[in-house]
Amino acid sequence: MPTFADMDMKRLKLCITMLAVVASGAATAMAQQNVGQPTDRITPAIGSDGSATFSIHAPKAENVTLKGNVPGAPAKMKPDGKGNWSLRLDSLPSDLYDYWIDVDGVRTLDPTNPYAARDIGLLSNIFIIPGGEGDLFLPSKTPHGTVRKDWYYSPTLKEARRLTVYTPSGYETGRSEYPVLYLLHGMGGDEEAWQDLGRAVQILDNMIGKGEVVPMIVVMPNGNAERVAAPGYAPGNHYMPEGKHSVAPQGAFEKEFPEIIKYVEDNYRVKSDKESRAIAGLSMGGGHAWRISMDYPDKFDYVGLFSPAVRWNGAGVDSEKGDARLLSKLRRQFQTRPRLYLIAIGSDDFLYDINESYRRLLDNQHISYEYLESKGGHTWANWRHYLVDFLPRLFKN
Amino acid sequence: MPTFADMDMKRLKLCITMLAVVASGAATAMAQQNVGQPTDRITPAIGSDGSATFSIHAPKAENVTLKGNVPGAPAKMKPDGKGNWSLRLDSLPSDLYDYWIDVDGVRTLDPTNPYAARDIGLLSNIFIIPGGEGDLFLPSKTPHGTVRKDWYYSPTLKEARRLTVYTPSGYETGRSEYPVLYLLHGMGGDEEAWQDLGRAVQILDNMIGKGEVVPMIVVMPNGNAERVAAPGYAPGNHYMPEGKHSVAPQGAFEKEFPEIIKYVEDNYRVKSDKESRAIAGLSMGGGHAWRISMDYPDKFDYVGLFSPAVRWNGAGVDSEKGDARLLSKLRRQFQTRPRLYLIAIGSDDFLYDINESYRRLLDNQHISYEYLESKGGHTWANWRHYLVDFLPRLFKN
Repeated sequence: MPTFADMDMKRLKLCITMLAVVASGAATAMAQQNVGQPTDRITPAIGSDGSATFSIHAPKAENVTLKGNVPGAPAKMKPDGKGNWSLRLDSLPSDLYDYWIDVDGVRTLDPTNPYAARDIGLLSNIFIIPGGEGDLFLPSKTPHGTVRKDWYYSPTLKEARRLTVYTPSGYETGRSEYPVLYLLHGMGGDEEAWQDLGRAVQILDNMIGKGEVVPMIVVMPNGNAERVAAPGYAPGNHYMPEGKHSVAPQGAFEKEFPEIIKYVEDNYRVKSDKESRAIAGLSMGGGHAWRISMDYPDKFDYVGLFSPAVRWNGAGVDSEKGDARLLSKLRRQFQTRPRLYLIAIGSDDFLYDINESYRRLLDNQHISYEYLESKGGHTWANWRHYLVDFLPRLFKN
Repeated sequence: MPTFADMDMKRLKLCITMLAVVASGAATAMAQQNVGQPTDRITPAIGSDGSATFSIHAPKAENVTLKGNVPGAPAKMKPDGKGNWSLRLDSLPSDLYDYWIDVDGVRTLDPTNPYAARDIGLLSNIFIIPGGEGDLFLPSKTPHGTVRKDWYYSPTLKEARRLTVYTPSGYETGRSEYPVLYLLHGMGGDEEAWQDLGRAVQILDNMIGKGEVVPMIVVMPNGNAERVAAPGYAPGNHYMPEGKHSVAPQGAFEKEFPEIIKYVEDNYRVKSDKESRAIAGLSMGGGHAWRISMDYPDKFDYVGLFSPAVRWNGAGVDSEKGDARLLSKLRRQFQTRPRLYLIAIGSDDFLYDINESYRRLLDNQHISYEYLESKGGHTWANWRHYLVDFLPRLFKN
């Protein structure tokens, strides 16, 4: 090869041609060197009518089935005789769906859909049907908030712990103080859960952008007291095979919770009065929000219990004395008149009965609360929906 | 169900039993409601001897092959006659590897390995063999930095754009100013790339923690001027099927780069002199680092070109006049005496020849630089290695 300095025009043209090849064909060339190449199509194809068309090339397969949280699934995909399988689902309600493809008994991620999200220890593909609530889960042209992964030190647990913090657009450049929502995940989840399948960042950006939600900071800690971070972010902190999940020490997360509040109030520009604090959680995190809001009755004016594991760690149910303690705490909490106390659950949720029992307790005690009952069970589709319902009610006084 | 208040002991015990079932069996119960359940094993199993044992249940399969960037791959997996396939690879060098499983022609992510990373438009599973350089890619007990996803406004491109910022442990609570490394991705990549397959966060935490690397802020912008963010983070910003990748407008990213520097220097506690700024990039990002360090010769004392697409956008090669302009810029840059100018490339890289030609140009001009030639090609394994080589040389004066 000549150096640039002594290159003649003919060679220069050859070189330019080569560069053009590099530029236009780089994806192909890189693919040969094992860089991840784009695929020949992106699936599912979303139609403007709310359809989703799935396809996969599985030349030797006998049975290919779409599975997951999609209306109509499980649904057999149809072969074209050339090794391609496809399935079209029509008129899907606007929402986020997660799925995988079962190819002759193998749980396969759709190889032509790079959008995936983790739930506990499993990856699934996701897609969104726009045109309704699903639009809240899609990024839009609205200004975006910042998402941070912080490590704070917990004196109670004697360790640094990871958390996710959302600050709304304008936080960095502004001077005002913001209210704070503490948003808690469920069992097996972690500080990534509300961001991933929960779509909290997109929901907040979109609803704040439309003026429906007050700009707020949202703190998503890791509620597993025995783990400092999501799998992969701390040593020895891996996914657990089925049945080997440890249950968090009773009350440890609740005990350290004031340290999270202190960290946030020391490090972010936030309002620190009761009417500027909210707490919500799903499942185990609903149990956490339930207990934390009772344990610190002067802290939260807004409480959201989504499919909550009320009485999760035995608080108040280990004895009649404990039961009396629960009632005493509840009465104390409601003496402070929280502005919103929302219980939301699906009619098929496996925690429905225990929540019904808890609601009867509240009714008998003449404690007022709001109740949202949806269809379906213990699912992210419901939890996203509850968050969308909960957020506009916060901090509007 | 009784309310808590009138519950007798017998019913209470039943209730406690039920709660215990909920606690210990929650994963199973939730799985039935389509929450992602943990699996019965985690793969691959990593042996203390550097072995990795892969396994998958594929009851109808005829051919199952491990593929990807693993020594020995592609490698056929062996059936046990009961539908299980396995493969053990021994004595793997300590490193991060990415792979997938080909089941009768279907590209399958390992269903029992939830660790995956995206490269351009494809997900692959990853695993790490510890005991050597691989340890740098694993989280350790060292203090962790914060990772942020910011949106900055670019007046040149007239839009908000997303970037990743790493701040080292101590940044939040301290008062000192830090040097900054701008770290650029390749074609098809985005502001997630160095964090994901690049493992930049773990590398920085570990090397800073060991005192081998000066604490620094690392800024990872999106180098695709025609895209504001990674796929999925902005409207209409999706993965492109093969061959439909657009090539960034020539020079647009380079032109807006001072705005990124300004954003960082306005919003972070950073040193803003030349000896406290570094720039590095891989492939297209190596081309960006090459041109940006030439275009703004007073800005960067440290330059890292990893498998760089030198002459990427035609700068300096579109004419003899352009060629002279390149030489003029280069001479001006080296008159400022950068402290480090590193070119790193693999002997099998498809950009090897053009880099060899560029090195000859530098040699002929008596411009001194450092050169690191590794085995292999245009791969993340090399780019991680180059980053590990580059970081300890920065900001030690």
